[in-house]
This record gives sequence, C-alpha cells and structure tokens, in this order.
Amino acid sequence: MHRITFRCWLLPSIVFCSLWITPVAASDPLPSWNEGLTKRQIIEFVHSVTAPGGPHFVPVSQRIATFDNDGTLWSEQPAYFQLQFSIHRTRQLAGSYPEWKNTQPFQAALENDLVALTSGNYRGFLALTAATCGNLTVSELHSEVAAWLKSSRHPRFKRPYTDLVFQPMLELLAYLKGNHFSSYIVSGGDLEFMRAWAPRVYGIPPERIIGSRLKTQAIKRDGKPALLRLPEFEFFNNASGKPISIRKVIGRRPIAAFGNSDGDLQMLEWTTTGSSQRLGVIIRHTDAQREWSYDRKSLIGHLDKALDKAAMNKWTVVDMKRDWRVIYPFQLKR
Amino acid sequence: MHRITFRCWLLPSIVFCSLWITPVAASDPLPSWNEGLTKRQIIEFVHSVTAPGGPHFVPVSQRIATFDNDGTLWSEQPAYFQLQFSIHRTRQLAGSYPEWKNTQPFQAALENDLVALTSGNYRGFLALTAATCGNLTVSELHSEVAAWLKSSRHPRFKRPYTDLVFQPMLELLAYLKGNHFSSYIVSGGDLEFMRAWAPRVYGIPPERIIGSRLKTQAIKRDGKPALLRLPEFEFFNNASGKPISIRKVIGRRPIAAFGNSDGDLQMLEWTTTGSSQRLGVIIRHTDAQREWSYDRKSLIGHLDKALDKAAMNKWTVVDMKRDWRVIYPFQLKR
Repeated sequence: MHRITFRCWLLPSIVFCSLWITPVAASDPLPSWNEGLTKRQIIEFVHSVTAPGGPHFVPVSQRIATFDNDGTLWSEQPAYFQLQFSIHRTRQLAGSYPEWKNTQPFQAALENDLVALTSGNYRGFLALTAATCGNLTVSELHSEVAAWLKSSRHPRFKRPYTDLVFQPMLELLAYLKGNHFSSYIVSGGDLEFMRAWAPRVYGIPPERIIGSRLKTQAIKRDGKPALLRLPEFEFFNNASGKPISIRKVIGRRPIAAFGNSDGDLQMLEWTTTGSSQRLGVIIRHTDAQREWSYDRKSLIGHLDKALDKAAMNKWTVVDMKRDWRVIYPFQLKR
Repeated sequence: MHRITFRCWLLPSIVFCSLWITPVAASDPLPSWNEGLTKRQIIEFVHSVTAPGGPHFVPVSQRIATFDNDGTLWSEQPAYFQLQFSIHRTRQLAGSYPEWKNTQPFQAALENDLVALTSGNYRGFLALTAATCGNLTVSELHSEVAAWLKSSRHPRFKRPYTDLVFQPMLELLAYLKGNHFSSYIVSGGDLEFMRAWAPRVYGIPPERIIGSRLKTQAIKRDGKPALLRLPEFEFFNNASGKPISIRKVIGRRPIAAFGNSDGDLQMLEWTTTGSSQRLGVIIRHTDAQREWSYDRKSLIGHLDKALDKAAMNKWTVVDMKRDWRVIYPFQLKR
C-alpha cells in the first residue's frame, strides 16, 4: 500500500500499471515476517481458501482460526503472566491469611517459587488461581486485572505485560481478519483474566475468547444480579480440553490453528484432520537474545510431542529467530 | 416493500413522494405481528438503539439478543420436542436393555408418561437424555437427530417438528439481523440436539447456540480424533444457568432477551438490569385454538414468577392470541 501511495505523488502516470501488475508485492500483509518458507506457507494457505471458485475455497462462515495465547500471541517467560497475577493476588491477600506462609501453594507464591508452581501439570498454579482469583464477581476480577496491568512491569523488559505481545502475530490476526476469518483465542488461561485485556490488545472480541473456567454462581449484590466466581475450576482448557471447548463454544472445526506447546497438540490434530485444506502452525521459541529459547525440557510452554507430530503431519513450524523480523511492537522502527 | 413495488407500476409519478414520506409504514418488518402496543414496543426499541447519534444508540458489537428456544421460538407441547426425541431413542435402544421396562426413567419413556418425565425439575427427562443421547460421538448424535426429524411427525399437527417454529419470531430474528444484532439461542435444550437443525431453520449459526451440555471426552475413532458425549450432564442451562453461560460464552450482557417460562426469569433479569436501554420479552401462550394455552399450572413451560416480574419490571408480554396474526410458517397465505 505504501508503495502505491508513494507512486501516486511522484509518478501519477504509471499508477495504473503498478496497480494491475504488482498488487500483491505492493502490500505485504506480514511485514514483520522475514521472507521464506514459513511466511509463504501461511500466505499460500490464506490465498488458497479465499480464492473465489478455487478448489479449496472456504465460505466466510467456516473461516475459523484458533490461537493459543501464552507463548503463541504473547510471551510466557519467566512464568505465565497470569501466574504473575496470581502471585500478586496472593501477596495482596496474604495479610488476611497468615497461615499461607506455611501452606502450599501459597508459600511457593510468596517465595516466588515458579518451579514448584508449574510442576505436576500446573497443579499449584491452578490451586493458586482458584483461591486468589475466585471469591470475586466477574466485574471485581476485571478491575483487579486492570489495576495490576497498570502497575506491574515485566521483570526482564520493565514494561507492562501487554507490551509483550508478538508483533508478527498481531499482523497475522489483522491479515486473517482482512480475509474474513473469525479468529478465536483458545487458551489454558482463565477466561476472564484474558477478557480483561485481550479485546483491546488483540482486537478479538469477548465472545471469541475461550479459556479455563471457574465455577460460577448467580447471586444478588446490592439487589442486582451479579456473577460470583467460586474458588474452584469447572474446566481446565488445555490439551484434550481444547477440541472439546472448541466444539462446545464454536461448534465448527477450525481450518487453521496456532499453538506453541504440547498443550496445543490436540487442538492442532483436531484442526488438521478435517477433510478440506487446513493449516497447523507451531510457534517455536528459538531466540534467546530477543525473547527466550526453550522447548522439550521447559516446564513452561513444554514443547516435545507436538514438535514430533509437527514433522509427521507437515505442520508449519515458525522459528522465531529465523522467521520474525521484530518480536514486540515497541521494537518497530517508526 | 410490497406497497412501494405496487405503486411503482400503477403510479410511477408519486413513487418518490411515497418513498420519502412513509418509508417505515411502507415496509413492515414484522408482517405476522398484529398492530398494537407489543409490536410498537419492539420496533421502538430497535429504532432507539440503532438511531445514529441518538441518546440510546448501541454500537453493533454490543447488539446482543438472546432467545430461549422451547416455547419461545417453537412450540413445546404436548412435551418438549427434545423429550420426544429422547423417548424415540429409548424405544430404539430398548431391545438391548430389557431391564428398562421396569426401570425409571426408561419405563416412563416407554409408556409415554410425560408427566413423570417432566415433574421434579425435569429430573427424569435429564436422566433419560443423558442415557439415550450420550454414548454417541457428536457426529453420531447429529445423524440420529437428522434421521428422527425426517421420519417423525408432531402428534397434533402431523408435520415435522421443525415446521412448528413461530413465524412471528422468524420475522423478529430477520428484523434484528437486518439491524446488525447478533442473536443467540440460550436454551435448556441439549446444545448438540439444537445444532443439528437450528442453524438451517432459524439462520442462527452454531457458535450462537448455547444449551445444556453433556460431559465430553476427546477420543480416537478409526485413528482420527473424535468427541464422545458421555452419559452425564456437565451443565443444565436453565434458570440461573442462563446468565452464567451467557457470561461464559458471549462475555457481554445482552440488550434484549426473549423467553416464555420461569426458566428464563434470570436471563431476563440479567439482561434488563443493564444500565442502557433494554428489552425484556415474555411470550405468553394464550391461544388454545391455534397453538396451546398454559402458564402457571403447566409442568411444561411453567410461567408463574416470571409473569409477576414482567409486570413489575415493565417487560413486554406477547399475548400470542392477540399479537400474532399467524403462528406457523405453513399457515401463511402465499
């Protein structure tokens, strides 16, 4: 688009030629993605399913794409950002619960013991989240998350956590939206934690955010109906939970899915075993300098089986170091 | 629209006047609704929230309307149509379960004892549904529902059950769609039972259908991932379940809600206690001749507390006999 506009001013007489001959090259929908196989596979998939009359054309209503959140749309190190929020909540509440100093998982949270909190299929993390992010109405939780996002800073980048979204993925979301896809977040994260910021940051509306759910009770507060989050999980939206909640909420099989860990394996299998053309994408964290580098041995964003399956199933593997020109929006040259 | 077209042919010279002076009267969006307060309240609400720059304008993204299904969008007598399907499934499977002849709720189903099945907050109905509509993959259930809809006939009208949708409500759905509302079904019915036919019949896509859910398991079937419905309810989407699932799935508060029974009371309260202009509507079954007449004493579609609240909260009460010119699409004069 920029090139065309530029020529309009300088060389108005050749604008028509330029418009007809190089429409694709003239507007790169993914400027923060380096040229190469990965970018080509994504763009070719989108062209293929949106080409009217083409053999792989997919009607707009079925253009569903699902995205994991932690490690796929934003960073997740040194620990899931939502875990950082749960630790913050633990500290905030600890004055009223002196016994937490010697009780797990609260003790681990107060001591910032991230390994203890993320071992054993996140048992500590989940228990901590239920206890510290439950017993609040939905609106109260949203206020707490908003206040925390405003005051907290990421330990490495010294910036608000919401600054650490991936610029290439923001471009991908916009590119898919421009091609009339409906993009959903399908994350293990707490549904309402995400809804407190993701609509603004990603442009994904609340009805397209699927996450883990706490049991919820309809109550009256000041005579008006309110929704109270109970301190107990109803559904952990990870691994095989992802295809299940995709079916229950969306009721359609996605044609594209994006993840970064073994928790996304079943979502990618569910998506790519559909009968028409499908796109499965794994974001691989390979850039220790600009972001982090981790996979098979990491507790956070553990990527092992899904990496083997990616090779078997010809899923696209994004190598962050090789494929991404820029990681975060604040690194863009204006 | 018809009046304009008519004048075009007869009196082309006054077409412009007609277009400018009576644009609203010229195209009635709800032709199967009789003129009167009810119709006026609905149309005035839609005008009010869609008038650009008006004091009650609501952006498109927040134009959410929720509809109960049984008794609100289609009939529910002599018993919920989904219960008829569960009874059909019981008969279909009974050969393999000889003990069902003497075991409740199967015995009641085999004896067509609708009262036993719908007493006690639908306990028998729910147990029957879990047992006969569980133990199937989602695709298998859809096939079973499709086959049943094709072969079964409503006992009174001798027509497919899907013929018994309310023509005035189809017009209302189309009217809201034309005004860029997103309409959702929020029903106590089984989510997948509804998805098997409601998208085609109402034009509501699967991602806007919210219902009761069976527990579901991700399995492999012939080496491919499949979703197995377990014979156990995960969530009964009725009464206070409705605002809870509206929050969990949509994440926005509706600005309009339509129901017909006490099971819709909490959804209507949740909707109409929002801060901006809201519409709460109760469909009241008052037409024994053309449909059915029932309310406070009926087990099916029990309407008692919600009727009292409707008066207190100034909800619109649709009197089917008075307000609807036509009940079913097949009664329309072509």
